[in-house]
Amino acid sequence: MPVKTRAVKSPWIAASARAIERAEKRTAILQTAAHLFSTKGFQKTSLDDIAVALGITKPTLYYYAKNKDDLIAQVAGLASDEILKAREGDENAPGLEQLKYFLRRYAGVTSTETGRCLVMLADYDIGEGAGAEVRTGKRAVDQHIRDLLALGVRDGSIAPCDIKLTTFMLAGSINGIGRWFREDGGLSAEKVAEVFVNQMTMGLAPR
Amino acid sequence: MPVKTRAVKSPWIAASARAIERAEKRTAILQTAAHLFSTKGFQKTSLDDIAVALGITKPTLYYYAKNKDDLIAQVAGLASDEILKAREGDENAPGLEQLKYFLRRYAGVTSTETGRCLVMLADYDIGEGAGAEVRTGKRAVDQHIRDLLALGVRDGSIAPCDIKLTTFMLAGSINGIGRWFREDGGLSAEKVAEVFVNQMTMGLAPR
Repeated sequence: MPVKTRAVKSPWIAASARAIERAEKRTAILQTAAHLFSTKGFQKTSLDDIAVALGITKPTLYYYAKNKDDLIAQVAGLASDEILKAREGDENAPGLEQLKYFLRRYAGVTSTETGRCLVMLADYDIGEGAGAEVRTGKRAVDQHIRDLLALGVRDGSIAPCDIKLTTFMLAGSINGIGRWFREDGGLSAEKVAEVFVNQMTMGLAPR
Repeated sequence: MPVKTRAVKSPWIAASARAIERAEKRTAILQTAAHLFSTKGFQKTSLDDIAVALGITKPTLYYYAKNKDDLIAQVAGLASDEILKAREGDENAPGLEQLKYFLRRYAGVTSTETGRCLVMLADYDIGEGAGAEVRTGKRAVDQHIRDLLALGVRDGSIAPCDIKLTTFMLAGSINGIGRWFREDGGLSAEKVAEVFVNQMTMGLAPR
Protein backbone atom coordinates (compact mmCIF):
# COMPACT_ATOMS: atom_id res chain seq x y z
CA MET A 1 0.00 0.00 0.00
CA PRO A 2 1.48 3.31 -1.04
CA VAL A 3 2.19 5.72 1.77
CA LYS A 4 -0.43 8.37 1.76
CA THR A 5 1.20 11.77 1.65
CA ARG A 6 -0.35 15.02 2.60
CA ALA A 7 0.87 18.43 1.63
CA VAL A 8 2.36 19.68 4.89
CA LYS A 9 4.30 22.78 5.45
CA SER A 10 7.93 21.73 5.61
CA PRO A 11 9.25 22.53 9.07
CA TRP A 12 12.52 23.59 7.38
CA ILE A 13 10.80 26.08 5.16
CA ALA A 14 8.83 27.26 8.14
CA ALA A 15 12.06 27.76 10.08
CA SER A 16 13.64 29.76 7.31
CA ALA A 17 10.44 31.78 6.89
CA ARG A 18 10.59 32.52 10.59
CA ALA A 19 14.19 33.63 10.21
CA ILE A 20 13.20 35.97 7.40
CA GLU A 21 10.28 37.25 9.40
CA ARG A 22 12.57 37.84 12.35
CA ALA A 23 15.06 39.73 10.19
CA GLU A 24 12.23 41.87 8.81
CA LYS A 25 10.99 42.63 12.29
CA ARG A 26 14.49 43.55 13.37
CA THR A 27 14.81 45.90 10.39
CA ALA A 28 11.46 47.52 11.21
CA ILE A 29 12.56 48.05 14.81
CA LEU A 30 15.91 49.54 13.82
CA GLN A 31 14.34 51.86 11.26
CA THR A 32 11.71 53.05 13.71
CA ALA A 33 14.41 53.62 16.32
CA ALA A 34 16.56 55.50 13.78
CA HIS A 35 13.60 57.69 12.87
CA LEU A 36 12.77 58.57 16.48
CA PHE A 37 16.41 59.05 17.55
CA SER A 38 17.13 61.35 14.64
CA THR A 39 13.95 63.40 14.89
CA LYS A 40 13.26 63.56 18.67
CA GLY A 41 16.87 63.06 19.78
CA PHE A 42 18.44 60.02 21.43
CA GLN A 43 18.03 61.23 25.00
CA LYS A 44 14.40 62.20 24.56
CA THR A 45 13.39 58.91 22.95
CA SER A 46 12.41 56.11 25.33
CA LEU A 47 12.09 52.40 24.61
CA ASP A 48 8.38 52.92 25.31
CA ASP A 49 8.17 55.45 22.45
CA ILE A 50 9.69 52.90 20.09
CA ALA A 51 7.41 50.08 21.26
CA VAL A 52 4.33 52.31 20.91
CA ALA A 53 5.37 53.43 17.41
CA LEU A 54 5.64 49.78 16.36
CA GLY A 55 2.54 48.62 18.22
CA ILE A 56 4.52 46.02 20.16
CA THR A 57 5.14 45.38 23.83
CA LYS A 58 8.38 46.24 25.57
CA PRO A 59 9.23 42.57 26.22
CA THR A 60 9.02 42.00 22.45
CA LEU A 61 11.41 44.89 21.94
CA TYR A 62 13.79 43.40 24.52
CA TYR A 63 13.91 40.27 22.39
CA TYR A 64 15.75 42.35 19.75
CA ALA A 65 17.79 44.78 21.86
CA LYS A 66 19.10 44.72 25.42
CA ASN A 67 18.62 48.44 25.97
CA LYS A 68 18.66 51.82 24.23
CA ASP A 69 22.45 51.86 23.87
CA ASP A 70 22.33 48.46 22.22
CA LEU A 71 19.58 49.70 19.91
CA ILE A 72 21.44 52.78 18.66
CA ALA A 73 24.59 50.68 18.30
CA GLN A 74 22.66 48.24 16.06
CA VAL A 75 21.28 51.15 14.01
CA ALA A 76 24.76 52.62 13.64
CA GLY A 77 26.04 49.19 12.64
CA LEU A 78 23.55 49.13 9.74
CA ALA A 79 24.90 52.50 8.60
CA SER A 80 28.57 51.56 8.78
CA ASP A 81 27.87 48.25 6.99
CA GLU A 82 26.19 50.28 4.25
CA ILE A 83 29.14 52.68 3.96
CA LEU A 84 31.62 49.82 3.89
CA LYS A 85 29.78 48.20 0.99
CA ALA A 86 31.09 51.12 -1.08
CA ARG A 87 34.60 49.69 -0.72
CA GLU A 88 33.70 47.43 -3.61
CA GLY A 89 34.30 50.07 -6.25
CA ASP A 90 36.44 49.87 -9.38
CA GLU A 91 39.78 48.70 -8.07
CA ASN A 92 41.58 49.74 -11.25
CA ALA A 93 40.51 53.39 -11.14
CA PRO A 94 43.00 56.03 -9.91
CA GLY A 95 43.06 56.52 -6.12
CA LEU A 96 41.37 59.93 -6.36
CA GLU A 97 38.46 58.50 -8.36
CA GLN A 98 38.01 55.62 -5.94
CA LEU A 99 38.12 58.07 -3.05
CA LYS A 100 35.47 60.30 -4.60
CA TYR A 101 33.22 57.29 -5.21
CA PHE A 102 33.62 56.11 -1.62
CA LEU A 103 33.08 59.58 -0.13
CA ARG A 104 29.93 60.13 -2.19
CA ARG A 105 28.46 56.91 -0.86
CA TYR A 106 29.62 57.76 2.66
CA ALA A 107 27.97 61.19 2.38
CA GLY A 108 24.81 59.57 1.01
CA VAL A 109 24.50 57.20 3.98
CA THR A 110 25.27 60.00 6.44
CA SER A 111 22.25 61.95 5.28
CA THR A 112 19.88 59.06 6.08
CA GLU A 113 18.31 58.50 9.49
CA THR A 114 20.51 55.49 10.24
CA GLY A 115 23.60 57.43 9.16
CA ARG A 116 22.63 60.28 11.43
CA CYS A 117 22.54 57.81 14.34
CA LEU A 118 26.08 56.68 13.50
CA VAL A 119 27.23 60.30 13.70
CA MET A 120 25.20 61.04 16.84
CA LEU A 121 26.66 58.05 18.60
CA ALA A 122 30.04 59.74 18.84
CA ASP A 123 28.39 62.29 21.10
CA TYR A 124 26.92 59.99 23.71
CA ASP A 125 28.72 57.92 26.26
CA ILE A 126 27.20 54.61 25.35
CA GLY A 127 28.25 51.44 27.15
CA GLU A 128 31.55 49.81 26.28
CA GLY A 129 30.05 46.64 24.84
CA ALA A 130 27.61 48.31 22.48
CA GLY A 131 30.14 50.94 21.51
CA ALA A 132 32.97 48.54 20.63
CA GLU A 133 31.38 47.16 17.48
CA VAL A 134 30.47 50.62 16.25
CA ARG A 135 34.01 51.84 16.80
CA THR A 136 35.25 48.89 14.73
CA GLY A 137 32.96 49.93 11.88
CA LYS A 138 34.02 53.57 12.11
CA ARG A 139 37.67 52.61 12.15
CA ALA A 140 37.18 50.53 9.01
CA VAL A 141 35.63 53.54 7.24
CA ASP A 142 38.52 55.70 8.39
CA GLN A 143 41.07 53.10 7.32
CA HIS A 144 39.58 52.83 3.85
CA ILE A 145 39.88 56.59 3.33
CA ARG A 146 43.53 56.43 4.44
CA ASP A 147 44.19 53.52 2.08
CA LEU A 148 42.66 55.37 -0.87
CA LEU A 149 44.62 58.54 -0.10
CA ALA A 150 47.83 56.51 0.06
CA LEU A 151 46.92 54.78 -3.20
CA GLY A 152 46.25 58.13 -4.86
CA VAL A 153 49.57 59.52 -3.68
CA ARG A 154 51.31 56.42 -5.10
CA ASP A 155 49.54 56.56 -8.47
CA GLY A 156 49.98 60.35 -8.72
CA SER A 157 46.27 61.25 -8.74
CA ILE A 158 46.63 62.86 -5.28
CA ALA A 159 49.38 65.29 -4.25
CA PRO A 160 51.47 64.18 -1.24
CA CYS A 161 49.57 65.13 1.93
CA ASP A 162 49.28 64.38 5.63
CA ILE A 163 47.17 61.24 5.29
CA LYS A 164 45.92 61.07 8.88
CA LEU A 165 44.85 64.72 9.09
CA THR A 166 43.39 64.73 5.61
CA THR A 167 41.30 61.70 6.57
CA PHE A 168 40.04 63.51 9.67
CA MET A 169 39.26 66.56 7.55
CA LEU A 170 37.26 64.58 4.98
CA ALA A 171 35.44 62.44 7.56
CA GLY A 172 34.72 65.51 9.72
CA SER A 173 32.99 67.32 6.87
CA ILE A 174 30.97 64.28 5.92
CA ASN A 175 29.95 63.48 9.49
CA GLY A 176 28.87 67.10 9.75
CA ILE A 177 26.21 66.39 7.12
CA GLY A 178 24.50 64.08 9.60
CA ARG A 179 24.23 66.97 12.05
CA TRP A 180 22.50 69.50 9.84
CA PHE A 181 20.96 67.65 6.89
CA ARG A 182 17.19 67.19 7.00
CA GLU A 183 15.27 65.64 4.15
CA ASP A 184 12.77 68.49 4.15
CA GLY A 185 15.45 71.18 4.16
CA GLY A 186 15.16 71.95 0.45
CA LEU A 187 18.41 70.25 -0.60
CA SER A 188 18.64 66.72 -1.95
CA ALA A 189 21.09 64.31 -0.37
CA GLU A 190 22.57 63.70 -3.83
CA LYS A 191 23.25 67.40 -4.41
CA VAL A 192 24.89 67.71 -0.99
CA ALA A 193 27.10 64.65 -1.57
CA GLU A 194 28.06 65.91 -5.02
CA VAL A 195 29.00 69.45 -3.96
CA PHE A 196 30.77 68.32 -0.80
CA VAL A 197 32.85 65.66 -2.45
CA ASN A 198 33.83 67.80 -5.43
CA GLN A 199 34.75 70.73 -3.23
CA MET A 200 36.63 68.64 -0.69
CA THR A 201 38.63 66.65 -3.17
CA MET A 202 39.42 69.45 -5.61
CA GLY A 203 42.36 70.49 -3.47
CA LEU A 204 43.75 66.97 -3.34
CA ALA A 205 44.84 66.66 -6.98
CA PRO A 206 48.35 67.83 -7.80
CA ARG A 207 48.43 71.35 -9.26
CA MET B 1 41.43 124.18 60.50
CA PRO B 2 42.30 122.01 57.59
CA VAL B 3 40.15 119.00 57.14
CA LYS B 4 42.09 116.02 58.27
CA THR B 5 42.17 113.43 55.57
CA ARG B 6 42.94 109.78 55.97
CA ALA B 7 44.00 107.45 53.23
CA VAL B 8 40.84 105.44 52.80
CA LYS B 9 40.14 102.85 50.19
CA SER B 10 37.90 104.51 47.65
CA PRO B 11 34.58 102.72 47.58
CA TRP B 12 34.58 103.20 43.81
CA ILE B 13 37.94 101.50 43.44
CA ALA B 14 36.74 98.79 45.79
CA ALA B 15 33.65 98.33 43.65
CA SER B 16 35.68 98.04 40.49
CA ALA B 17 38.09 95.65 42.23
CA ARG B 18 35.09 93.57 43.22
CA ALA B 19 33.89 93.59 39.62
CA ILE B 20 37.31 92.40 38.46
CA GLU B 21 37.38 89.75 41.15
CA ARG B 22 33.94 88.63 40.14
CA ALA B 23 34.97 88.42 36.47
CA GLU B 24 38.04 86.41 37.48
CA LYS B 25 35.93 84.03 39.52
CA ARG B 26 33.51 83.64 36.63
CA THR B 27 36.41 82.83 34.30
CA ALA B 28 37.77 80.26 36.77
CA ILE B 29 34.35 78.63 37.00
CA LEU B 30 33.89 78.52 33.22
CA GLN B 31 37.37 77.12 32.65
CA THR B 32 36.90 74.44 35.29
CA ALA B 33 33.52 73.55 33.79
CA ALA B 34 35.04 73.44 30.28
CA HIS B 35 37.80 71.14 31.53
CA LEU B 36 35.41 68.72 33.22
CA PHE B 37 32.83 68.75 30.39
CA SER B 38 35.48 68.09 27.77
CA THR B 39 37.34 65.38 29.69
CA LYS B 40 34.55 63.57 31.61
CA GLY B 41 31.73 64.44 29.22
CA PHE B 42 28.84 66.84 29.75
CA GLN B 43 26.35 64.25 30.96
CA LYS B 44 28.75 62.68 33.44
CA THR B 45 29.79 65.99 35.00
CA SER B 46 27.61 67.27 37.86
CA LEU B 47 27.48 70.76 39.34
CA ASP B 48 28.84 69.09 42.50
CA ASP B 49 31.95 67.97 40.57
CA ILE B 50 32.54 71.54 39.45
CA ALA B 51 32.00 73.01 42.92
CA VAL B 52 34.36 70.43 44.46
CA ALA B 53 37.05 71.09 41.83
CA LEU B 54 36.90 74.80 42.67
CA GLY B 55 36.61 74.32 46.43
CA ILE B 56 33.39 76.33 46.54
CA THR B 57 29.85 75.59 47.68
CA LYS B 58 27.00 74.91 45.29
CA PRO B 59 25.15 78.11 46.31
CA THR B 60 28.26 80.07 45.26
CA LEU B 61 28.21 78.29 41.92
CA TYR B 62 24.53 79.14 41.49
CA TYR B 63 25.48 82.80 41.84
CA TYR B 64 27.28 82.46 38.47
CA ALA B 65 25.13 79.96 36.61
CA LYS B 66 21.49 78.93 36.87
CA ASN B 67 22.15 75.31 36.00
CA LYS B 68 24.39 73.01 33.96
CA ASP B 69 22.84 74.06 30.63
CA ASP B 70 23.46 77.70 31.46
CA LEU B 71 27.03 76.84 32.40
CA ILE B 72 27.91 75.07 29.13
CA ALA B 73 26.15 77.85 27.21
CA GLN B 74 28.36 80.44 28.94
CA VAL B 75 31.46 78.35 28.18
CA ALA B 76 30.42 78.05 24.55
CA GLY B 77 29.79 81.79 24.48
CA LEU B 78 33.42 82.40 25.49
CA ALA B 79 34.52 80.21 22.59
CA SER B 80 32.34 81.87 19.97
CA ASP B 81 33.38 85.34 21.22
CA GLU B 82 36.99 84.23 20.79
CA ILE B 83 36.37 82.97 17.24
CA LEU B 84 34.50 86.14 16.31
CA LYS B 85 37.46 88.28 17.41
CA ALA B 86 39.25 86.86 14.38
CA ARG B 87 36.88 88.83 12.16
CA GLU B 88 39.18 91.78 12.72
CA GLY B 89 41.75 90.64 10.18
CA ASP B 90 43.26 92.58 7.30
CA GLU B 91 40.23 93.92 5.46
CA ASN B 92 42.25 94.72 2.36
CA ALA B 93 43.56 91.19 1.83
CA PRO B 94 41.95 89.00 -0.86
CA GLY B 95 38.89 87.05 0.32
CA LEU B 96 40.74 83.72 0.25
CA GLU B 97 43.50 85.06 2.52
CA GLN B 98 41.00 86.53 4.96
CA LEU B 99 39.12 83.23 4.95
CA LYS B 100 42.27 81.25 5.69
CA TYR B 101 43.15 83.59 8.54
CA PHE B 102 39.67 83.29 10.03
CA LEU B 103 39.53 79.50 9.65
CA ARG B 104 42.93 79.06 11.27
CA ARG B 105 41.77 81.01 14.31
CA TYR B 106 38.45 79.13 14.32
CA ALA B 107 40.34 75.82 14.20
CA GLY B 108 42.65 77.03 16.99
CA VAL B 109 39.74 77.83 19.31
CA THR B 110 37.99 74.56 18.45
CA SER B 111 40.93 72.56 19.75
CA THR B 112 40.70 74.20 23.20
CA GLU B 113 38.49 72.94 26.01
CA THR B 114 36.05 75.84 25.67
CA GLY B 115 35.92 75.32 21.90
CA ARG B 116 35.19 71.65 22.42
CA CYS B 117 32.19 72.64 24.56
CA LEU B 118 30.87 74.84 21.75
CA VAL B 119 31.04 71.84 19.42
CA MET B 120 29.59 69.44 22.01
CA LEU B 121 26.68 71.73 22.64
CA ALA B 122 25.23 70.94 19.25
CA ASP B 123 24.79 67.37 20.47
CA TYR B 124 22.77 68.02 23.59
CA ASP B 125 19.26 69.30 23.90
CA ILE B 126 19.94 72.22 26.15
CA GLY B 127 17.17 74.54 27.20
CA GLU B 128 15.87 77.14 24.78
CA GLY B 129 17.05 80.15 26.78
CA ALA B 130 20.63 79.02 27.26
CA GLY B 131 20.80 77.70 23.72
CA ALA B 132 19.57 80.85 21.99
CA GLU B 133 22.65 82.96 22.69
CA VAL B 134 24.96 80.19 21.59
CA ARG B 135 23.04 79.75 18.35
CA THR B 136 23.44 83.49 17.72
CA GLY B 137 27.21 83.14 18.14
CA LYS B 138 27.36 80.11 15.87
CA ARG B 139 25.29 81.84 13.23
CA ALA B 140 27.66 84.81 13.30
CA VAL B 141 30.64 82.48 12.72
CA ASP B 142 28.78 80.83 9.86
CA GLN B 143 27.78 84.18 8.37
CA HIS B 144 31.35 85.44 8.44
CA ILE B 145 32.54 82.40 6.47
CA ARG B 146 29.79 83.01 3.90
CA ASP B 147 30.73 86.69 3.64
CA LEU B 148 34.40 85.87 3.07
CA LEU B 149 33.56 83.23 0.45
CA ALA B 150 31.36 85.75 -1.36
CA LEU B 151 34.10 88.37 -1.11
CA GLY B 152 36.65 85.92 -2.53
CA VAL B 153 34.35 85.04 -5.42
CA ARG B 154 33.93 88.76 -6.15
CA ASP B 155 37.66 89.56 -6.00
CA GLY B 156 38.58 86.44 -7.98
CA SER B 157 40.62 84.72 -5.24
CA ILE B 158 37.95 82.02 -4.91
CA ALA B 159 36.34 80.13 -7.79
CA PRO B 160 32.53 80.40 -7.97
CA CYS B 161 31.06 77.82 -5.59
CA ASP B 162 27.92 76.91 -3.66
CA ILE B 163 28.47 79.31 -0.76
CA LYS B 164 26.05 77.71 1.68
CA LEU B 165 27.27 74.14 1.19
CA THR B 166 30.93 75.17 1.10
CA THR B 167 30.40 76.95 4.43
CA PHE B 168 28.88 73.79 5.91
CA MET B 169 31.78 71.76 4.53
CA LEU B 170 34.41 74.06 6.04
CA ALA B 171 32.64 74.45 9.39
CA GLY B 172 31.94 70.70 9.56
CA SER B 173 35.62 69.83 9.21
CA ILE B 174 36.67 72.39 11.76
CA ASN B 175 34.00 71.42 14.28
CA GLY B 176 35.21 67.85 13.82
CA ILE B 177 38.53 68.89 15.34
CA GLY B 178 36.73 69.51 18.63
CA ARG B 179 35.53 65.92 18.59
CA TRP B 180 38.85 64.15 18.19
CA PHE B 181 41.61 66.59 19.13
CA ARG B 182 43.28 66.04 22.50
CA GLU B 183 46.24 68.11 23.66
CA ASP B 184 48.16 64.98 24.62
CA GLY B 185 47.51 63.25 21.30
CA GLY B 186 50.93 63.99 19.84
CA LEU B 187 49.76 66.71 17.41
CA SER B 188 49.91 70.42 18.15
CA ALA B 189 46.79 72.52 17.67
CA GLU B 190 48.79 74.80 15.37
CA LYS B 191 49.86 71.94 13.12
CA VAL B 192 46.27 70.67 12.88
CA ALA B 193 44.92 74.14 12.05
CA GLU B 194 47.64 74.67 9.46
CA VAL B 195 47.15 71.36 7.64
CA PHE B 196 43.36 71.51 7.80
CA VAL B 197 43.07 75.03 6.51
CA ASN B 198 45.60 74.60 3.74
CA GLN B 199 44.03 71.33 2.60
CA MET B 200 40.47 72.62 2.82
CA THR B 201 41.07 75.86 1.01
CA MET B 202 43.42 74.55 -1.67
CA GLY B 203 40.43 73.51 -3.73
CA LEU B 204 38.77 76.91 -3.45
CA ALA B 205 41.19 78.91 -5.58
CA PRO B 206 40.42 79.07 -9.29
CA ARG B 207 42.51 76.58 -11.30
